[in-house]
Amino acid sequence: MADSHEQNETQRIEAFSDGVFAIAITLLIIEIAVPHVEGDQSLGKALREEWPSYFAYVLSFITIGIYWANHHSFFKLFHHVDHGFLMLNVFFLMTIAFLPFPTAVLAEYMEHADQRQAAIAFYTLGLLLPAVAWFSLWAWANFRELVVHDLAPGYRRFLTRQYLASNLIYAGAFVLSFINEWAALALCTGITAIYVLPPRRPVFVG
Amino acid sequence: MADSHEQNETQRIEAFSDGVFAIAITLLIIEIAVPHVEGDQSLGKALREEWPSYFAYVLSFITIGIYWANHHSFFKLFHHVDHGFLMLNVFFLMTIAFLPFPTAVLAEYMEHADQRQAAIAFYTLGLLLPAVAWFSLWAWANFRELVVHDLAPGYRRFLTRQYLASNLIYAGAFVLSFINEWAALALCTGITAIYVLPPRRPVFVG
Amino acid sequence: MADSHEQNETQRIEAFSDGVFAIAITLLIIEIAVPHVEGDQSLGKALREEWPSYFAYVLSFITIGIYWANHHSFFKLFHHVDHGFLMLNVFFLMTIAFLPFPTAVLAEYMEHADQRQAAIAFYTLGLLLPAVAWFSLWAWANFRELVVHDLAPGYRRFLTRQYLASNLIYAGAFVLSFINEWAALALCTGITAIYVLPPRRPVFVG
Amino acid sequence: MADSHEQNETQRIEAFSDGVFAIAITLLIIEIAVPHVEGDQSLGKALREEWPSYFAYVLSFITIGIYWANHHSFFKLFHHVDHGFLMLNVFFLMTIAFLPFPTAVLAEYMEHADQRQAAIAFYTLGLLLPAVAWFSLWAWANFRELVVHDLAPGYRRFLTRQYLASNLIYAGAFVLSFINEWAALALCTGITAIYVLPPRRPVFVG
Repeated sequence: MADSHEQNETQRIEAFSDGVFAIAITLLIIEIAVPHVEGDQSLGKALREEWPSYFAYVLSFITIGIYWANHHSFFKLFHHVDHGFLMLNVFFLMTIAFLPFPTAVLAEYMEHADQRQAAIAFYTLGLLLPAVAWFSLWAWANFRELVVHDLAPGYRRFLTRQYLASNLIYAGAFVLSFINEWAALALCTGITAIYVLPPRRPVFVG
Repeated sequence: MADSHEQNETQRIEAFSDGVFAIAITLLIIEIAVPHVEGDQSLGKALREEWPSYFAYVLSFITIGIYWANHHSFFKLFHHVDHGFLMLNVFFLMTIAFLPFPTAVLAEYMEHADQRQAAIAFYTLGLLLPAVAWFSLWAWANFRELVVHDLAPGYRRFLTRQYLASNLIYAGAFVLSFINEWAALALCTGITAIYVLPPRRPVFVG
Repeated sequence: MADSHEQNETQRIEAFSDGVFAIAITLLIIEIAVPHVEGDQSLGKALREEWPSYFAYVLSFITIGIYWANHHSFFKLFHHVDHGFLMLNVFFLMTIAFLPFPTAVLAEYMEHADQRQAAIAFYTLGLLLPAVAWFSLWAWANFRELVVHDLAPGYRRFLTRQYLASNLIYAGAFVLSFINEWAALALCTGITAIYVLPPRRPVFVG
Repeated sequence: MADSHEQNETQRIEAFSDGVFAIAITLLIIEIAVPHVEGDQSLGKALREEWPSYFAYVLSFITIGIYWANHHSFFKLFHHVDHGFLMLNVFFLMTIAFLPFPTAVLAEYMEHADQRQAAIAFYTLGLLLPAVAWFSLWAWANFRELVVHDLAPGYRRFLTRQYLASNLIYAGAFVLSFINEWAALALCTGITAIYVLPPRRPVFVG
């Protein structure tokens, strides 16, 4: 009874989270404006010149898609969720729902030599935020002992290292953007590409 | 049979409500416009100056997130829903879906000395509306005897007091905004912060 | 087996329809623009002058909410759905998803004496479309014998009359708008108010 | 156990995909702008002149609706999904969520003689992308042997031919748009109309 109630709770949080993922990912497109062309200007050329918008769309779409795919297996690591976990998950969703904004900023200013650095720095912050929130979920679950007991200690340490590494990489990309903004953007793109690869499967003991 | 039908009804209302919560919460971001900078203006500065938008985003996101979290346990207090309850729930969802608008008004005018009072007053009204709708759901459920019978009378009175208090506080924040608008906004922020804390669990008798 | 497969089909159509209802209803708010005030203009006054937007928001929100509430009990009248029914349901959802547009047109031009007639006529068409689609779903289900066999013939005729009446009333409101646009809008509002009342429950035989 | 876990995985992917379908299809409407009329201009005329927006809305709505309807029966052809399939499905959803953009471009420039060709060419690309993604899902599932074993070989070849044909037709429409853009748009419209017809049911052996 209590068990099935817990399961219902978790399912409802996942369903709500999936909803926010699906909406945030689909809203990305409305940040791309129809180009305004007049007279003998070429619409084809204008559409091609919007490539930063397409690039930012694809990068953020895949990023949110990966978070969605991982969120589900992540939730299977906990035998229980408490109120603090619930609220940290709301915080995490807040950072996911925020992503369309830095994506739009990146798309708008990637081609402006004067503003590119600020746009990319802001985008790296946009990617850092969900990584921070994700790590805080994990830290809270460990602190409150919500993690399933048969998760292999080695795998648990692997996850801690991996989540910390994500934070350090995005924070590094932020710093890097002040030295070489293209390198910072390449770093973010590379990390996303790596995450497209299959994740290491959880290891259980006993 | 009738029971499982009732349960299906309730689940469908909850699923629809969750959908509206998830969409309203995710739509908050599209009210934040990409700043327009030209020439030697700084995009970084322009992004920092949009802090009222970030503040309003966070405050409304958490507010809707809390309503979402509470809506589910709230629905567990009723053995049955009738047509009036369904329609009042549509009214409640209307007030939740409305929130992105006062949020955008607050973000736009929080820094304008002349308009700040009106923006904050409007935002407190935006918060008062769901509180009124929530209380009307509770009052209707009591009037129509939809509340589960084993809910402890003391807990029931506690909820009535709590829901009434929310209404009085937001109404008070509206009045306060005409005297000191920052105090009114601080009050709304404080209430939201309190609601982040774990809610008192329902008490059943027998 | 076949039965549970059918049920899954119906549930998936309902879930998708509920998603479109929830999104269309929540999107209504983004058609309300933050008023632009400058200098010594009053934001409070500008917000109050947006009352046509609030009125249109409430009217369309309730209309979609009622369609949502009825869609579920409507689907219980069919033992089976076929491909044609599925496609007509897509057509119905298209008319629901379209509603935010005439709502925005109504909100924008309700106060412009020269354009009010066209705005209200367009809004009545926006309401007529889902009524037509709904009736076509019902007609198709009867033509293809998808209706459950134990539905009382009298109740079935009652539904046919009711759905036809909706079509006639909205078509009438369209015509009326050319004579007296306020009367046409009052008619639409009145119909919505009547639909808020509890619907007549289905009657089964045997 | 493993089976029900697999089934859960598939259901969650379908639910997420349905969410993206529902949001993308409902977002189509917000690309239609309320016409701006002044003085003695006619709102009715302005609304009628927006017919390219209505046409593009209907065409893309039906296209996404058909993909939604087919996605579900498509997923029944696989006994299992792997990480690559999951990521290709994210890619597929990216192409669906992208559709509101070429739809808005088509609506904006269909009536501009100078830009019509580019708008229609871009729209055919917008339709080609999901066809490519769909075919890549099918090719991956065949390569990784995810297809249920009792699917009749003849039906499997039929699907391969059908999915390839879609790709060729949309690619052909793109090329055709440089010769006769109206013919290209007619081709896309015709294909959508054909897809409204009932699909051929899967054939199983044994």
